[in-house]
Amino acid sequence: MGSPKTQHGNYFEDFHLGQTIIHATPRTVTAGDVALYTALYGGRFALPSSDLFAQQMGLPQAPVESMLAFHIVFGKTVPDISLNAIANLGYANGRFGQPVYPGDTLSSTSEVLGLRQNRDGKTGVVYVRTIGVNQRNEMVVDYVRWVMVRKRDLNAPAPETVVPSLPDAVAAEDLLVPLGSAPGSYDTARAGGPHRWGDYAPGERIDHLDGITIEEADHMLATRLYQNTARVHFNQHVEQAGRFGRRIVYGGHIISMARALSFNGLANAQCILAINGGRHTNPSFAGDTIYAWSEVLERSALAGRDDVGALRLRTVATKDRPCHDFPYKDGEGNYDPAVVLDFDYTVLLPR
Amino acid sequence: MGSPKTQHGNYFEDFHLGQTIIHATPRTVTAGDVALYTALYGGRFALPSSDLFAQQMGLPQAPVESMLAFHIVFGKTVPDISLNAIANLGYANGRFGQPVYPGDTLSSTSEVLGLRQNRDGKTGVVYVRTIGVNQRNEMVVDYVRWVMVRKRDLNAPAPETVVPSLPDAVAAEDLLVPLGSAPGSYDTARAGGPHRWGDYAPGERIDHLDGITIEEADHMLATRLYQNTARVHFNQHVEQAGRFGRRIVYGGHIISMARALSFNGLANAQCILAINGGRHTNPSFAGDTIYAWSEVLERSALAGRDDVGALRLRTVATKDRPCHDFPYKDGEGNYDPAVVLDFDYTVLLPR
Amino acid sequence: MGSPKTQHGNYFEDFHLGQTIIHATPRTVTAGDVALYTALYGGRFALPSSDLFAQQMGLPQAPVESMLAFHIVFGKTVPDISLNAIANLGYANGRFGQPVYPGDTLSSTSEVLGLRQNRDGKTGVVYVRTIGVNQRNEMVVDYVRWVMVRKRDLNAPAPETVVPSLPDAVAAEDLLVPLGSAPGSYDTARAGGPHRWGDYAPGERIDHLDGITIEEADHMLATRLYQNTARVHFNQHVEQAGRFGRRIVYGGHIISMARALSFNGLANAQCILAINGGRHTNPSFAGDTIYAWSEVLERSALAGRDDVGALRLRTVATKDRPCHDFPYKDGEGNYDPAVVLDFDYTVLLPR
Repeated sequence: MGSPKTQHGNYFEDFHLGQTIIHATPRTVTAGDVALYTALYGGRFALPSSDLFAQQMGLPQAPVESMLAFHIVFGKTVPDISLNAIANLGYANGRFGQPVYPGDTLSSTSEVLGLRQNRDGKTGVVYVRTIGVNQRNEMVVDYVRWVMVRKRDLNAPAPETVVPSLPDAVAAEDLLVPLGSAPGSYDTARAGGPHRWGDYAPGERIDHLDGITIEEADHMLATRLYQNTARVHFNQHVEQAGRFGRRIVYGGHIISMARALSFNGLANAQCILAINGGRHTNPSFAGDTIYAWSEVLERSALAGRDDVGALRLRTVATKDRPCHDFPYKDGEGNYDPAVVLDFDYTVLLPR
Repeated sequence: MGSPKTQHGNYFEDFHLGQTIIHATPRTVTAGDVALYTALYGGRFALPSSDLFAQQMGLPQAPVESMLAFHIVFGKTVPDISLNAIANLGYANGRFGQPVYPGDTLSSTSEVLGLRQNRDGKTGVVYVRTIGVNQRNEMVVDYVRWVMVRKRDLNAPAPETVVPSLPDAVAAEDLLVPLGSAPGSYDTARAGGPHRWGDYAPGERIDHLDGITIEEADHMLATRLYQNTARVHFNQHVEQAGRFGRRIVYGGHIISMARALSFNGLANAQCILAINGGRHTNPSFAGDTIYAWSEVLERSALAGRDDVGALRLRTVATKDRPCHDFPYKDGEGNYDPAVVLDFDYTVLLPR
Repeated sequence: MGSPKTQHGNYFEDFHLGQTIIHATPRTVTAGDVALYTALYGGRFALPSSDLFAQQMGLPQAPVESMLAFHIVFGKTVPDISLNAIANLGYANGRFGQPVYPGDTLSSTSEVLGLRQNRDGKTGVVYVRTIGVNQRNEMVVDYVRWVMVRKRDLNAPAPETVVPSLPDAVAAEDLLVPLGSAPGSYDTARAGGPHRWGDYAPGERIDHLDGITIEEADHMLATRLYQNTARVHFNQHVEQAGRFGRRIVYGGHIISMARALSFNGLANAQCILAINGGRHTNPSFAGDTIYAWSEVLERSALAGRDDVGALRLRTVATKDRPCHDFPYKDGEGNYDPAVVLDFDYTVLLPR
């Protein structure tokens, strides 16, 4: 029984410190992906929506949404890194590089940065740095994530524990600005809101107001679009007997929903420069209605640029709970049970 | 509580006669949008489906479906015009101009043509003319709609009542023909039906036969694709406590479904030239099966063209009711309860 | 009642031996179709996914998935061939020709090869050979199928019985290789698996492991994308009173799901060269979870090519039943009730 050609994914003992993993499948991103991304999330940021607007900001055409590039790069890592994962524990030190345009072909490669077997002897944490590159081998996105992975053989020896030290946030001087010098004709009316970089202050909180209900078809279309093969998203026949009795929504789908919702209040946050950290604090399911709010954590000038600046944000997504009172953590640091995402990232705005 | 940057949309007292509203977000239409539109409605008209066929009709490539252009232009107006609307009351005087091709960038601007506060003092009707233009500032679609909008402040004074006078239909001499002179090789076999302009007569009624069931994922994908943010389409968490207990399908989604169904009997009606009027007579919901029938209202020659002509049609859509007996209104002028759409528009056919 | 312009499809007595049927609607395939196909099935084969990979295999850019081309060609035949069909009985002698690239326009034409009235006098079997061509009139796919079609008039005389003789499989010498001479730099790591043509042996069986649950929205989006109008897929209002009480999934949707799942174990089977035969042994419905396994039937060299070879495969899809033990037929030749597809086809792999 069983066929030797069937791939079952890597288990904890299959990872080695310093190991490089070349992921399948190279993927040419197209205008079709962009349209689907719009249909899936309804994003309204002008830069990825309009070639004309992008040209006014100094780019040759509209780049794809930052998170679309991320999901495509991430999806490729799943069959090698997290097919046997129990949990996707976190992200850190994510930077976006070259903008991705329709026609670009993306590939992903990962390096194992750290390993730590858990005390139960059944699982371990794998830290990988993944880099996504385009057809010219230019970095388009680069990030660290760590996942808890099952052991195949409980008797396999524990590797030496190595936990990489990761920054709390990508430093402003390490951010890459995807725009040439902008010609200064930034159109806030067409962008959808008057507030520029200087209008936001650390500590400010913004309710993004609207809620969108998830359907099974939506999240599965999205996750397949990213060629992400994690089983828990797709197989109701297995999941009906699982922990939740149902398919779990890909965490990145929630990030994209929250990012699209954040247009209301952050219309000029045209692209993401960095993912400082992120946690999926609860699973989401079809039928859940996702809401979001954001807090401005930091405002940074960008070296040599007086036309654009960076804002570090925390965007929190909830399910079935509006965010007018900014639900987050209680006094003991425990998340409000409605919170599904705590996402710390840095966006670019015009000054 | 509440964040000053969150946009809540305009209320009745925020509109002023003659006011011009520049809508976010410019949108580059692509082959991706066209594919999604096909997947959402299954349209089979040859002109928007085939570059080859379009070239045989004198165009450089396949233009996008008329209603796709309309929905994109319309969607942009929602956050400014109808976010606080109770009802979308009607459309009139809609004309299509330049064909839209993949690569074109569309923007929308509206002008307030009329205002009428309702007697209850809580709501009012806003009439707007919206114009959608491409990147060369050429009109692609232009129409009037009126919506009933809530007042935020019930004590705000009523504006002077101005109700624009609107034509029953766009006059034949005002129709714009998107085709150059057609080379005369129109292929009815590939188009899918033998009936040309001259084969239709006013009063003729056509059952479009098939029915298509709406899914939540379908109508939400469509409405997000159009960057239409009307809340009633997306948020089950709120709508479960609302009037209908469920999400309402965007009315334009029904128009597109009816237009796609109308291929059976109107295969050569290659594009829409005008929207004379339209009413969503009942809400539609996921699970409803949409059927449609059409009546020919008028047949008009087009000045200087002996290759193509115009037909004014009424297409009626129903839910959960086949249309072999052409359900419409009873003797007292009340709509059959199964009717969800009464759409009066003008199409182009080869002679 | 009834409108003479409404098309009701052909009935058994409308078909004549040797008849040629030109199908509507020509269709330009685009990058949008490719993205949707990825979102619908999650395929990971490198050739259709990556322009870069395709160029390394000697093609100008990524061709679309073989089955996407097939579904588009097939969809056009439905309104003429199978609108009044009771069952799609089988496929044979299917060959893929010119690769299809975004921008190509496909048209379909069918010829009636055989007719056989059933003994009940109410139905008959129609055999058609369909050819799909691109805008240069080059064959892209060519196949025979046979369907059982209702008679409109039970008194219509039976035609002479003609049953075409069809090969069990397309012979290796008749296969068309869509690649120029490959430069030899085939990258198995990026392709997603180490196993080349020579690593597979007849009799070998491979479990594709994963299962994907079908949603109503998915299969209807797919089937509309292919402009396939078969009513049983779309109309719940009618189907709720039908044989199964629900919409039936287009059989081709299952083929595409099984092909996407087959990546796990057949990652280098970059395209399909032939469809030797196929049967939909049971209907599938939304909610079903589809699994698949494959058996290698034959391994053939290709004349004049030492870089690529052909494998003839049987891929079997099941619903709600994993395939680790390769469910197929019992001792009496009856299919396991979980089997929904028995598909015999030939794929291309690098040597």
